[in-house]
Amino acid sequence: MKTNVMQETTLSPVITPEAFLAHWQGHRRVTRRVIEAFPEDKLFSFSVGGMRPFAELATEMIRMSSPGIDGILTGKWDRFDYSPAGTTKKELLQQWDEVTEKINTLWPQIPAQRFLENDIAFGQYEGPIYGTLLYFVDNEIHHRGQGYVYLRALGIEPPPFWNRM
Amino acid sequence: MKTNVMQETTLSPVITPEAFLAHWQGHRRVTRRVIEAFPEDKLFSFSVGGMRPFAELATEMIRMSSPGIDGILTGKWDRFDYSPAGTTKKELLQQWDEVTEKINTLWPQIPAQRFLENDIAFGQYEGPIYGTLLYFVDNEIHHRGQGYVYLRALGIEPPPFWNRM
Repeated sequence: MKTNVMQETTLSPVITPEAFLAHWQGHRRVTRRVIEAFPEDKLFSFSVGGMRPFAELATEMIRMSSPGIDGILTGKWDRFDYSPAGTTKKELLQQWDEVTEKINTLWPQIPAQRFLENDIAFGQYEGPIYGTLLYFVDNEIHHRGQGYVYLRALGIEPPPFWNRM
Repeated sequence: MKTNVMQETTLSPVITPEAFLAHWQGHRRVTRRVIEAFPEDKLFSFSVGGMRPFAELATEMIRMSSPGIDGILTGKWDRFDYSPAGTTKKELLQQWDEVTEKINTLWPQIPAQRFLENDIAFGQYEGPIYGTLLYFVDNEIHHRGQGYVYLRALGIEPPPFWNRM
């Protein structure tokens, strides 16, 4: 009995799989609104301080999360794909929406214990799967925060950060 | 037996309390380096697009995480404190380090089931404790991402985002 209690404490969740999916998709809704908020030309050209335009940052998110969710489910990883995810806002948003659907479809198939397993994401980044997942979301928030500055510098009000609906 | 298995699946962790603390403190190390990277005067004055200078963003993080960890542990929340956390870089970093220590001290005292409880953070924001915690970290990453743009606009190389040591 003692051992069971110990195990339950050690493996108690801060976040369950269901909660993490909802959390991630909430952030993805905000990021989608940031892509939408950019004027077409500025999305692919504007930046501050020599950084990448927001289309390139959104492409990185797509290239990370889509093969990423495959790798998390299957344990098979390709090398990171650096090619552009689209050349228009419409294409980028289409790609975005496809990834959203894909994550919703594959997520429930991930076995519960998988989140605590170690793996080498994209054949390069070793660590527990939950760490890889947190990195996907953190990287999205980080770059989207940059997008907020780009929008403000363009005189455009960004979507509220706290609204994940 | 069936019920137990169901329960374990539902409450299986993506992230355990220990992992979440390590994750949060890893991000706090990066943010500390961003505060340090700003020249003293720019920390309190520079911004892009009419946004808040980084000292104000760091103050928000301090005002969120320090009473935040108290509220998470005790269930008692004060109203959000909007006063500045310091008027020099040294003061800000001192406050930052005190909060880091406080989080390390209080975290192990949080009962495992607390993370899934509902509460009203700062008497205003209702939701599960894990959601409040995610918000603290997400808000830090979001505003720090803005700080990265400020630094780049100042011609300063920001600390690497991926290095959490």
